[in-house]
Amino acid sequence: MIIIGEKINSTVKNVADAIKEGNFEYIVELAKKQYLAGAHYIDVNAGAFVDIETEVLKKMIESIQKEIDAPLSIDSPRPEVIGEVMKIYKGERAIFNSVIYEEGILSRALPIIKEYNMKVVALLMDDVGIPDEPEKRVEIAKRLVDRFTSSGILEEDIFLDPMLQPVSVDKRYVDVALETIKLIRKEFENVNIICGLSNVSFGLPKRRWLNRAFLPIAIYFGLNSCIADPLDDVLMKLIYAAEALSGRDEFCMEYITKAREGFLD
Amino acid sequence: MIIIGEKINSTVKNVADAIKEGNFEYIVELAKKQYLAGAHYIDVNAGAFVDIETEVLKKMIESIQKEIDAPLSIDSPRPEVIGEVMKIYKGERAIFNSVIYEEGILSRALPIIKEYNMKVVALLMDDVGIPDEPEKRVEIAKRLVDRFTSSGILEEDIFLDPMLQPVSVDKRYVDVALETIKLIRKEFENVNIICGLSNVSFGLPKRRWLNRAFLPIAIYFGLNSCIADPLDDVLMKLIYAAEALSGRDEFCMEYITKAREGFLD
Repeated sequence: MIIIGEKINSTVKNVADAIKEGNFEYIVELAKKQYLAGAHYIDVNAGAFVDIETEVLKKMIESIQKEIDAPLSIDSPRPEVIGEVMKIYKGERAIFNSVIYEEGILSRALPIIKEYNMKVVALLMDDVGIPDEPEKRVEIAKRLVDRFTSSGILEEDIFLDPMLQPVSVDKRYVDVALETIKLIRKEFENVNIICGLSNVSFGLPKRRWLNRAFLPIAIYFGLNSCIADPLDDVLMKLIYAAEALSGRDEFCMEYITKAREGFLD
Repeated sequence: MIIIGEKINSTVKNVADAIKEGNFEYIVELAKKQYLAGAHYIDVNAGAFVDIETEVLKKMIESIQKEIDAPLSIDSPRPEVIGEVMKIYKGERAIFNSVIYEEGILSRALPIIKEYNMKVVALLMDDVGIPDEPEKRVEIAKRLVDRFTSSGILEEDIFLDPMLQPVSVDKRYVDVALETIKLIRKEFENVNIICGLSNVSFGLPKRRWLNRAFLPIAIYFGLNSCIADPLDDVLMKLIYAAEALSGRDEFCMEYITKAREGFLD
């Protein structure tokens, strides 16, 4: 499971306040905590500061990379913003988060992804919107993978996001997301399937329990990455267990190792 | 979700010790705790005391029923034992736990189930054993349901057990159990599908995390009952969340109610 730590998000009040106050130590602390807790990438998002998004992202990245080696997921819908901040990015390969299937976006994103040897998150939607049917989302997935691989990007560097939507809005959204995951996994053995876990619980109270219950199901269907809160230790333990149950942990060796290390106490 | 509390099981050391010492207060306490924690039935098992199983079960039942009103699940592979102890059973309808598809068992169990108006757990195995293929387990399910309903037992009083087996023995066992659940749910809308949750984690350390991760997946596939530990509050919270995600909690109202009651804190 490839975990992208979600906590440095400018739409969250504490993070927004820290940015406004120039308190980037707070941001660095969030990065450190998530990395220590097992996140493989740390997401950085400054989308709420649309006029100064580039400057805020640069400041976040510089501050974090002074202190830790964690690779980052640069989170912006604007390719030019990601292109600009990558000029100062150091260290391990970053993730371009994210593109959709839209010619204007792709033609601007691809040169940046190539230039900086980035991985990429691609949302299964296009300029028309998010299709209702899993099959249509998979059609977009195929077009995206085709476009990426013909540009020299490897399947294992692609993260497809099936577009998990809130169960509070429509109970079928869970089924649609899971069916999309299943179909993509059948089609592409090597691409990563990612989701923004907390989308499922939007609009409901005590969201963590919904996020936690959803993840084992999604892992069973083929999900192998998520944007989530690695500080949620119940969630992290469920991930190891779900991988053991889903046949992706040969002889449950990783689960047994985690148990021995005291991680599952 | 219909939860049968598993803790009064004579193969567990503390329970066996209590039985040996004649400490039935301990048994009653276990029943009370499970009932308060949300168990709908309390399982009573004295199988480890094969020579005195009937007497031990009677003592358990009398002790518990003096103190609380919880309906019980009488857990024995021997119909005559269940028939004998039902003579002293009072209160709400009990569960006959369990039968298999085997003529000798069924012909002895059915008159008892009828006489005492019991519900019944039926394991999807026959005198040959547990079939490897989900389709063959479903064949047994069909024969069992046919036999029960033609004896006047309602579908909603039947609990089919797909025979969850340990992932540590064979990683495909999880897939087989889930596929069986899915097929049974497609075939029978009204029968209950139950499993002995902890079977999945047999032979592995820190079993709770595996049990907890398995349950949301199984609920999504159609499970609506389990024999489990209701004192595991993480598990209980995941159950409510999984039902909301599985479209079996209209508008997530039960989830929202549980959140308001502080149950999901």
